[in-house]
Amino acid sequence: MADWSPPEVFARLDHDRAGRRGYPEAIYCAGKTVEQTAALAAAVRDRREVTLFTRAGEDHAEAVSRELPGARYHADARLVAWPGEPPEPAGGRVVVLCAGTSDLPVAREACLTARYLGRDCALVADVGVAGLHRVLGHLDLLRAARVVVVVAGMDGALPSVVAGLISAPVIAVPTSVGYGAAFGGIAPLLTMLNSCAPGVSVVNIDNGYGAGHIAAQIAAPA
Amino acid sequence: MADWSPPEVFARLDHDRAGRRGYPEAIYCAGKTVEQTAALAAAVRDRREVTLFTRAGEDHAEAVSRELPGARYHADARLVAWPGEPPEPAGGRVVVLCAGTSDLPVAREACLTARYLGRDCALVADVGVAGLHRVLGHLDLLRAARVVVVVAGMDGALPSVVAGLISAPVIAVPTSVGYGAAFGGIAPLLTMLNSCAPGVSVVNIDNGYGAGHIAAQIAAPA
Amino acid sequence: MADWSPPEVFARLDHDRAGRRGYPEAIYCAGKTVEQTAALAAAVRDRREVTLFTRAGEDHAEAVSRELPGARYHADARLVAWPGEPPEPAGGRVVVLCAGTSDLPVAREACLTARYLGRDCALVADVGVAGLHRVLGHLDLLRAARVVVVVAGMDGALPSVVAGLISAPVIAVPTSVGYGAAFGGIAPLLTMLNSCAPGVSVVNIDNGYGAGHIAAQIAAPA
Amino acid sequence: MADWSPPEVFARLDHDRAGRRGYPEAIYCAGKTVEQTAALAAAVRDRREVTLFTRAGEDHAEAVSRELPGARYHADARLVAWPGEPPEPAGGRVVVLCAGTSDLPVAREACLTARYLGRDCALVADVGVAGLHRVLGHLDLLRAARVVVVVAGMDGALPSVVAGLISAPVIAVPTSVGYGAAFGGIAPLLTMLNSCAPGVSVVNIDNGYGAGHIAAQIAAPA
Amino acid sequence: MADWSPPEVFARLDHDRAGRRGYPEAIYCAGKTVEQTAALAAAVRDRREVTLFTRAGEDHAEAVSRELPGARYHADARLVAWPGEPPEPAGGRVVVLCAGTSDLPVAREACLTARYLGRDCALVADVGVAGLHRVLGHLDLLRAARVVVVVAGMDGALPSVVAGLISAPVIAVPTSVGYGAAFGGIAPLLTMLNSCAPGVSVVNIDNGYGAGHIAAQIAAPA
Amino acid sequence: MADWSPPEVFARLDHDRAGRRGYPEAIYCAGKTVEQTAALAAAVRDRREVTLFTRAGEDHAEAVSRELPGARYHADARLVAWPGEPPEPAGGRVVVLCAGTSDLPVAREACLTARYLGRDCALVADVGVAGLHRVLGHLDLLRAARVVVVVAGMDGALPSVVAGLISAPVIAVPTSVGYGAAFGGIAPLLTMLNSCAPGVSVVNIDNGYGAGHIAAQIAAPA
Amino acid sequence: MADWSPPEVFARLDHDRAGRRGYPEAIYCAGKTVEQTAALAAAVRDRREVTLFTRAGEDHAEAVSRELPGARYHADARLVAWPGEPPEPAGGRVVVLCAGTSDLPVAREACLTARYLGRDCALVADVGVAGLHRVLGHLDLLRAARVVVVVAGMDGALPSVVAGLISAPVIAVPTSVGYGAAFGGIAPLLTMLNSCAPGVSVVNIDNGYGAGHIAAQIAAPA
Amino acid sequence: MADWSPPEVFARLDHDRAGRRGYPEAIYCAGKTVEQTAALAAAVRDRREVTLFTRAGEDHAEAVSRELPGARYHADARLVAWPGEPPEPAGGRVVVLCAGTSDLPVAREACLTARYLGRDCALVADVGVAGLHRVLGHLDLLRAARVVVVVAGMDGALPSVVAGLISAPVIAVPTSVGYGAAFGGIAPLLTMLNSCAPGVSVVNIDNGYGAGHIAAQIAAPA
Repeated sequence: MADWSPPEVFARLDHDRAGRRGYPEAIYCAGKTVEQTAALAAAVRDRREVTLFTRAGEDHAEAVSRELPGARYHADARLVAWPGEPPEPAGGRVVVLCAGTSDLPVAREACLTARYLGRDCALVADVGVAGLHRVLGHLDLLRAARVVVVVAGMDGALPSVVAGLISAPVIAVPTSVGYGAAFGGIAPLLTMLNSCAPGVSVVNIDNGYGAGHIAAQIAAPA
Repeated sequence: MADWSPPEVFARLDHDRAGRRGYPEAIYCAGKTVEQTAALAAAVRDRREVTLFTRAGEDHAEAVSRELPGARYHADARLVAWPGEPPEPAGGRVVVLCAGTSDLPVAREACLTARYLGRDCALVADVGVAGLHRVLGHLDLLRAARVVVVVAGMDGALPSVVAGLISAPVIAVPTSVGYGAAFGGIAPLLTMLNSCAPGVSVVNIDNGYGAGHIAAQIAAPA
Repeated sequence: MADWSPPEVFARLDHDRAGRRGYPEAIYCAGKTVEQTAALAAAVRDRREVTLFTRAGEDHAEAVSRELPGARYHADARLVAWPGEPPEPAGGRVVVLCAGTSDLPVAREACLTARYLGRDCALVADVGVAGLHRVLGHLDLLRAARVVVVVAGMDGALPSVVAGLISAPVIAVPTSVGYGAAFGGIAPLLTMLNSCAPGVSVVNIDNGYGAGHIAAQIAAPA
Repeated sequence: MADWSPPEVFARLDHDRAGRRGYPEAIYCAGKTVEQTAALAAAVRDRREVTLFTRAGEDHAEAVSRELPGARYHADARLVAWPGEPPEPAGGRVVVLCAGTSDLPVAREACLTARYLGRDCALVADVGVAGLHRVLGHLDLLRAARVVVVVAGMDGALPSVVAGLISAPVIAVPTSVGYGAAFGGIAPLLTMLNSCAPGVSVVNIDNGYGAGHIAAQIAAPA
Repeated sequence: MADWSPPEVFARLDHDRAGRRGYPEAIYCAGKTVEQTAALAAAVRDRREVTLFTRAGEDHAEAVSRELPGARYHADARLVAWPGEPPEPAGGRVVVLCAGTSDLPVAREACLTARYLGRDCALVADVGVAGLHRVLGHLDLLRAARVVVVVAGMDGALPSVVAGLISAPVIAVPTSVGYGAAFGGIAPLLTMLNSCAPGVSVVNIDNGYGAGHIAAQIAAPA
Repeated sequence: MADWSPPEVFARLDHDRAGRRGYPEAIYCAGKTVEQTAALAAAVRDRREVTLFTRAGEDHAEAVSRELPGARYHADARLVAWPGEPPEPAGGRVVVLCAGTSDLPVAREACLTARYLGRDCALVADVGVAGLHRVLGHLDLLRAARVVVVVAGMDGALPSVVAGLISAPVIAVPTSVGYGAAFGGIAPLLTMLNSCAPGVSVVNIDNGYGAGHIAAQIAAPA
Repeated sequence: MADWSPPEVFARLDHDRAGRRGYPEAIYCAGKTVEQTAALAAAVRDRREVTLFTRAGEDHAEAVSRELPGARYHADARLVAWPGEPPEPAGGRVVVLCAGTSDLPVAREACLTARYLGRDCALVADVGVAGLHRVLGHLDLLRAARVVVVVAGMDGALPSVVAGLISAPVIAVPTSVGYGAAFGGIAPLLTMLNSCAPGVSVVNIDNGYGAGHIAAQIAAPA
Repeated sequence: MADWSPPEVFARLDHDRAGRRGYPEAIYCAGKTVEQTAALAAAVRDRREVTLFTRAGEDHAEAVSRELPGARYHADARLVAWPGEPPEPAGGRVVVLCAGTSDLPVAREACLTARYLGRDCALVADVGVAGLHRVLGHLDLLRAARVVVVVAGMDGALPSVVAGLISAPVIAVPTSVGYGAAFGGIAPLLTMLNSCAPGVSVVNIDNGYGAGHIAAQIAAPA
């Protein structure tokens, strides 16, 4: 039995996703090697559609940039976009709100995702419920949005408050910000799932990409 | 120290909610007595906006009907609506999908809520992922929707499959249908929060009302 | 080996508790038989201090009243107090707030406990964060309190909001009101433990008695 | 579409917090970069009120000291205070107790917080319930306190014992000290929430700051 | 394919258990029908060793008594013993302590089990840690025991306190007494597993039988 | 807007399942009304393949029997089979083992399912690991099986022991038998997932049907 | 008391395992030192049966290779096999499917294990349910398998979909791939245990070895 | 307000513990600095009783040895004993069993603790339930023990098997050995708490010290 070698397989891109679903592919980099990431980037080179690389570290970003000149790395949000310029915005406006400074990376990931998927997006930070006047000071902005993404860790109370003030839907993003009984985001996740105000739905902990994606779908042009 | 009596307080309706948020009030009946429910129904009698009574048992429904002639009870969905006729539909279409027969009460609650909030709504049942052809047989209906509500218990796998097939956002509703390691809906809740397809956000377990409400907001006329 | 009989023991009251701690004894009735409750009530008959019977059903209340004429049963709060009239209030004022109608029994238990332990107490209901104007409409009352007890189920967001508005300490009481991912009060418990506003500490789920007790201690006369 | 750049936002301090609530701002440093911390420190330079920087590592502390000369770093408690001298004590006395040596950092954070918020504070360590005589040896100190903060990991049994001995309220702080089924502080958290002695309320795991803050509020001068 | 019938099996007693292990068989009645219980009782009739039926309701007890005249039902402990008289005590003494009145059924089950397995046993109730003097008042009894079984719900703090006072081993039994964050006994279970005093080991929630059994083994004559 | 009526949907059978997968349909009756069950039974009347109704109570069974004469109800296993006679056995033999008498209903459901799906099946009860000789006494039977289904609650230790003794695969079924820290079957579920012996895979708690089904697939004729 | 030394023990191989069970021994390297691993490898040198070393890092692999020339290290799967060439395949075919690229190491471990235990095995990657056409494109391969191993993290939905399409049994392997509410593999574990399609059983999170082992048993030659 | 300095406290040893309880003090080193450990070691220098330092790393061990010449470090068990020679054994024999090689450090900690507390102790490793003959091969040793400590991770099934074979009590120690659904020791902890064989009680995960301590108490001379 000479020459036996273990079975080999390779990752294949979902090339028809943009055609089938209308939104570009996203490649989740966490847990991928630099080599795997580079190979995937090379495979998208000939397509002219927007492609996002999420949860990308510095190494992933460099590998993508070598294969895809013109790609742009947003280090804070760990997001690489190609091409680096987003499309002209169309559809309604997305507003992203976050409760604390530590929630900013997730909020930025949501905002940039919505922007690269073709929506106008504004981001407002540091509007926690412990200082209500800060939320109330942005009511005009909030009421003009087609959809509001609310990012919060710890008590996760902000989405309930915001949803009670506006008529647009709220996409809530719990974050892993906090300690002790925050349990890595379980506390704000449960808070948001139990919002006493209707009009709130929830994505996974720290899932800024997912929130930005569904916000872009909700605010899509008719 | 004569005449001491314990402090008394009464529930007050959020009378300006429809004005502030654009959607009618909903009264959550679970845990309320028949008397409390009747008092709340009497208080809404002079308003001409749609009011919903959710999680209403037979007793709650009778109490509401006595105070609000013309109210309609949808027993399966445990929902009382007043007035009983929904408004003319406007905006985009909501499609509600459910995986199994046992998920129907929650699916109906979602569908009726969206309908009473002014949207056109279709409901398709028994399209679990164990028989993929049943999902694929409804692709035209799904692709024409402005938003799809997917209701599933047990493995909660349906939203991932549906979101991979369409460009509209998916609101996922885990149900408490199942046993053992379904843990009263925790299993499908986690499945849905971890959907490998983007475009899914999630409401509380068995929260058909919440899903119908946010679906109506998403499908609202521009 | 004739006449063997199993060992018998009886519950004994902590007779010197009021002397040692300055607050009356409370007897937790849940899980006690009517006979056990009656025996305990008979044992307190000769003492002239306030005694509370918590989590008391109708049967417990009747048993206590037979042994302790003048006892008063507050059915909603499941509390029997003896004597039925609370002492003249002394010390600072306790304000109890609750988010929804279904939280009222717990809120009342807290309020009555504080009252029977010698404090003045006010109770305000239905001030959930989904309608912020309702909270803001009570600011004067809240800011005049020595301590505020905040009772909430579901998202449990109210204590964070209240603590951000006042300088007095907040005792937060999560309730088991809600369904699905509220997990019998775990969701609001975690929210409250993770309050982004300082000045909040938390008691057990549905523990109105405990909240009223510590509130009375905080507001005790100097 | 030239010149597109992602949205930028900055953290803003809650400048009116001291006026609104009567207590100084605290800046939570965990998860903040040195640069963010320095920027926040620079922003508080012109105010003369006490400001606390919690969960501050060596790097955070140096950044703050550069911007705020006179700041003092308490490394064990990971707390930076500015100005470094606390105000003259007023109001009642806070006593902080901790069960084991490993609980000291949290106990110190509680004690220092109360002290910088204007209270007199004493700290007693190593009084675990496995050696009851050590608790009983401090009864005079405990009974003279306006409020007692009890810090414990592992079995978290100390607050129940202490609350049974005194008339002042107890603020319990579970710590993450322990292993195995201590589950990072869940075990003592649950113990404390279920205290069989009334007069105990609980803050988040390892939340010395929160305990010191509410203790300062409870012991505030009338 | 005539005459197919489903496979039938019957429960068989572990007849050689007493010989192999030195302790009598126990039959767990919860979830067994009256018929199954009666059949098992009939099967033990010819043996002259002590047999225990645990978690036995009234119906189970009657079924056993019909088959095994002389059996004795201890209703509070839900225990049927046959023969009804325990053997002459031998070995060291077992002391069972319980924190509250509601823990008595479990404490009695432990005490009776140890007694029927041949040990002398004393039971002391209502010695919760909220009133330390009640524990300290029994020190002589505790220090004379070969092993102490400590039964407690809620905060489960009693075993830590007792183990710190004596040299004998402590078997801790958490009970499901409590509410809210007691989580059906999880809170005292964790407390006991994390006892800061050495010399404590733990059995399942409400497992009075198991505690009494191992206590009897520990106190067995040399 | 006359004549509005809520959308109606009906459950549809997966009629081509037997063709597609080679095994008959099973209808899960828990949570279905008698009417729904009867309608589903009527729909299968014209097909001549085996159909199973699982988790069927007496009412469900009667409804099925009215529509499908010749159906057979196995009350203990809550299973209705139609037709009542199973097919001639083919393929390898399935052996089902259960640890205690209380696990019998689940074990029977597994055994009957395998039998109705066309396999020969033997069932052995009361072979818990506390009496190893009982397991070892069945070694010949176990070693002749093509697959062994092991059903156990409480400690769930039996599958590890069995898998260490044989070369055939083991399908482990945790049951909800037990109390306290058995947590409704979580304890044996985890035990089985962590089996130190290879050759074990696990189905849901109390899922006798699922175990019998996959056992039938494993033992299918080549 | 001179010369006391602590008791020493050594790990012993289960030398008769292959004889007793028909499958080779596997040595779990995680948590073992290089020296322990080398000693175990030396002990197997004289046997000519296949031996697997699982969860082996580079250091473990080198230690084994020094003792067992001809051993082969599959770094991605962290598996060392000795001898390095697998036996001629016999029995049915095993097909391993994985949902995403990050699941590949676990999938490879399953595939290689089955291969070294004597089965033919094919591995297909990147067939997540978000792109159903990728699953459906492999139907012929899937339907020709004797058993299919499905490896997936995140939502873990793939086994339900696959089991609905084929008649062979499915062994599902949840992976720790994912973040937030994936909880290190709990989410896909629960999904798989609750599969709405029958014919699925589950092994531990990331347990590629266990899945490959039981798959080899299922596909064993008659 | 010159010269303010934060309150300082020091850890004090429980000097009368040996007198009060009959067993030496143990100092838990995890989380203590080298300086703290050295200070505690210096404080015990004048006492002639055995003192144990548990969870001691190399650094802790060196610090202790500098202060306490003659101390002995058992690196595998992370235990420092002073004096290094244990006392002459008295009382019954303790036997420690562990399921796998990875459980050895915990097993050794148990064995050494019992030995330093004055008991004779034997340690047997690698007797997992997957190879029953290995357990059965040690029956004579097990049956001669006064108490058996059983250490196991993963499925934690060994204590149930052992307790079914002997008449002595079993102290079960779950370990954090395992992965995935072992959840850091929760799986074997639950298995052991739910042992179907009576005569088992349980200590905390990885708590070899606690197991050895209570074993020494159980086997104490009469």
